[in-house]
Amino acid sequence: MRTSPLPLTVGELSEGELLDRILPRLAGGAAALLGPGDDAAVLAAPDGRVVVSTDTQTQDADFRLVWPNGYRHTGFDVGWKAAAQNLSDINAMGAVATGIVVSLTLPPATPVGWVEDLADGLAAGVRGLGATRCALAGGDLGRGGELSITATVLGSLDGRSPVLRSGAHPGDVLAVAGSLGHAAAGLALLDEGPAYETLDGALRGLVELQCRPVPPLNAGPAAALAGATALMDLSDGLERDSLRLAQASRVRLDFDLDALRARAEPLRSAAALLGADPLAWVLGGGEDHGLLAAFPADAQLPHGFAAIGSVLPADGGTPGVFVGGHPAASRGWDHFAW
Amino acid sequence: MRTSPLPLTVGELSEGELLDRILPRLAGGAAALLGPGDDAAVLAAPDGRVVVSTDTQTQDADFRLVWPNGYRHTGFDVGWKAAAQNLSDINAMGAVATGIVVSLTLPPATPVGWVEDLADGLAAGVRGLGATRCALAGGDLGRGGELSITATVLGSLDGRSPVLRSGAHPGDVLAVAGSLGHAAAGLALLDEGPAYETLDGALRGLVELQCRPVPPLNAGPAAALAGATALMDLSDGLERDSLRLAQASRVRLDFDLDALRARAEPLRSAAALLGADPLAWVLGGGEDHGLLAAFPADAQLPHGFAAIGSVLPADGGTPGVFVGGHPAASRGWDHFAW
Repeated sequence: MRTSPLPLTVGELSEGELLDRILPRLAGGAAALLGPGDDAAVLAAPDGRVVVSTDTQTQDADFRLVWPNGYRHTGFDVGWKAAAQNLSDINAMGAVATGIVVSLTLPPATPVGWVEDLADGLAAGVRGLGATRCALAGGDLGRGGELSITATVLGSLDGRSPVLRSGAHPGDVLAVAGSLGHAAAGLALLDEGPAYETLDGALRGLVELQCRPVPPLNAGPAAALAGATALMDLSDGLERDSLRLAQASRVRLDFDLDALRARAEPLRSAAALLGADPLAWVLGGGEDHGLLAAFPADAQLPHGFAAIGSVLPADGGTPGVFVGGHPAASRGWDHFAW
Repeated sequence: MRTSPLPLTVGELSEGELLDRILPRLAGGAAALLGPGDDAAVLAAPDGRVVVSTDTQTQDADFRLVWPNGYRHTGFDVGWKAAAQNLSDINAMGAVATGIVVSLTLPPATPVGWVEDLADGLAAGVRGLGATRCALAGGDLGRGGELSITATVLGSLDGRSPVLRSGAHPGDVLAVAGSLGHAAAGLALLDEGPAYETLDGALRGLVELQCRPVPPLNAGPAAALAGATALMDLSDGLERDSLRLAQASRVRLDFDLDALRARAEPLRSAAALLGADPLAWVLGGGEDHGLLAAFPADAQLPHGFAAIGSVLPADGGTPGVFVGGHPAASRGWDHFAW
C-alpha cells in the first residue's frame, strides 16, 4: 500500500505548465518596463549605461542536494544564493541592481515543488537583501542531466563611475564590508561536521550563510559615494581576491594580522569542533560575498566598512598581498584546480 | 608507444589559465564601456532602456557531442549557436544587440581545444551574423558533469517601442523572415540520416543550419521601422510559436497552404531520403530562428519578409492557428514533454 504519493516531477509537466507555477512567484516588487512572456524583457537604464554580470551554480560542483552532514539543500537555498551572488557583483561595481534573468536546467525527475521553492528563494533573496529596484524579468527553462541555474543581473550606476579593481593607490586604507570566513566555516560543517540536527544555533547560522549568503548590498553604492578608489566582491577568498585587486592596481596590499584575528573570533567554536584554523577560513574562505575596498586615507569609511589594512607601493614593481608583514599564500577557491 | 599525446583538458588548467586562452578570442569588434576582467561589465544603453534575454544549451538535451549519423558537434558549433539563438531574441523585439555575457559549465575532462573552438564560434557568430554593435562583455566559468553554455544578450531599441507578440490586429498580413523547417530537416538527418560524410552539399547545408543557425538579424529592426504590429522569434516551430502570438494578440492566424508548400520544396530531397513529410518540418520544426511578424495590410513588407497568411478575428473569442482553413495541430518542441 502506498501511503504517500510520489511527488509531481517536472517531466510530467509541459514547459508552459511549469512556467505557470514559477512566474506568479516572481511577480511583485519593482517592475520591469516589460517583464516575462515575450522574446525578451525591457529594463530601464536611466543613465544610459547598464552593468551586467552572470554566474552559474551547478549541482555537485556548487551545491549538493544532500550534504555529508545530512543537511538537505533546498530549492529555496539555490534560488536565494543565485540572487545573492549575482547581486553582489553589481554591488561590487558601486551599482544598484535593476533586473535579473534566470536560466534553469532541470532533470525530468526534479520535483515540481523543489522548483517552486527555488522561485520562492530567488524572489525572497532579491527582496530580503534589499534589492528593491530589481525586477525578476524573465528567463529560460530547459532539461539536462544535472540541476543548474544561471542568473544574470543588470544594474544602474545612477550617474556614477563604476568602481574598478584597478584604482587603488599607495597610501589608501583597505577596508572590508560583510563577514569573512563564515561561509567557509559553514561549508566545512556541511562537509565534515556532525549531523546538522545536532548543531547549535550559532553553528547552524554558519551553515545558513554558506547556503543563503547575505552580501551587504548597500555598501557598494555607499563606497562609491565615499570616494572608494577600488572595489571588488569577495567570492573566492580574501587572499585570492585581494591578489587580483593588487595586480589590477599594481600595488602591494598589507593586511593587519590583529584585525584578521579579530575576524576569526566568531569562528572559534566551529574551528574547535572540526580541528580547523579559523584564520585560514578568514584568509582563504570565499562565498561570504562581502566587499574589499580601498579608500583615500582621509575618507570617512561608510557604514558597514571596517579598516583591515593599507595599500603600499608594489615591492620592486611586483604586486602582492602581505599579512602581518609576510607574503600571503593564495589559498582561495579555483574552479578547475582541485 | 604513444603516437599522439592526449589533449590538454580544462581540469589541468587553473581558471585564470583557461580564461587567458578564451578572452583573447573574444576581443575586437564593438567595444563595451567596460569589458571582461572586473566584477561586472558596463555597456551603453543609449536610449535609457535595455533589452535582455537568456538561453541555455546543455549537452545531450540541446546537442550531442557525436550525433547518430556520425557528425561531431564542434565547440565552434556550440559557440555559434549560443550567439545565434540569443541574438535572435533581441532581433525579435525589433532591437539591436549591444553585448553578450556567457556562463560556461565544463566537465574537467573537456579538451581545452574544444573550449577555444567554442570561444571562436561565439565570436564568429556575433560577427558573421552582423551583430557589429555587440560586445563580448564577459562571463563565468565553472565545472559540472555535463557541458552547458548560457548566453545572455543585451540590446538597444534605439528609441523605438519594442514590437511585442500581443499587437497583431485582424486585417494584418502575416509574414516570415528566414528559413522554415531547414534546421528540423538537419536535425532529422543528424538523428536518422546516413553517415554525414556521404551527404551531398545541400543536405550538409541543412545539418549546418541546425548546428549553426543564421537568424536574419537585420529583419527585426526593419520590421519595427516598417510598422510591424507583432513580432516573435521562431524557435519552437511555426505552429507552436504562432499559437503563442495568436493567444497574446487574441486573434486567429490563417496560414496560406500554398505558401507553406512552397517553403517545403527545398526540403524535398532530405524528406525523400528519410521518408519524412517536408511540410511537417515547415510547420513543426524549430531552431531556424526566423521571425514571424504581423504588418498592417497597407505596409510595405521590408526586405527579407514574405507574406504567408493573414490575421483574422478570433473565432468566438478563442485564439487559434489555421493552416489552409483547417485548425493546426501544435507539433513544435516542448522541453519537458517528450
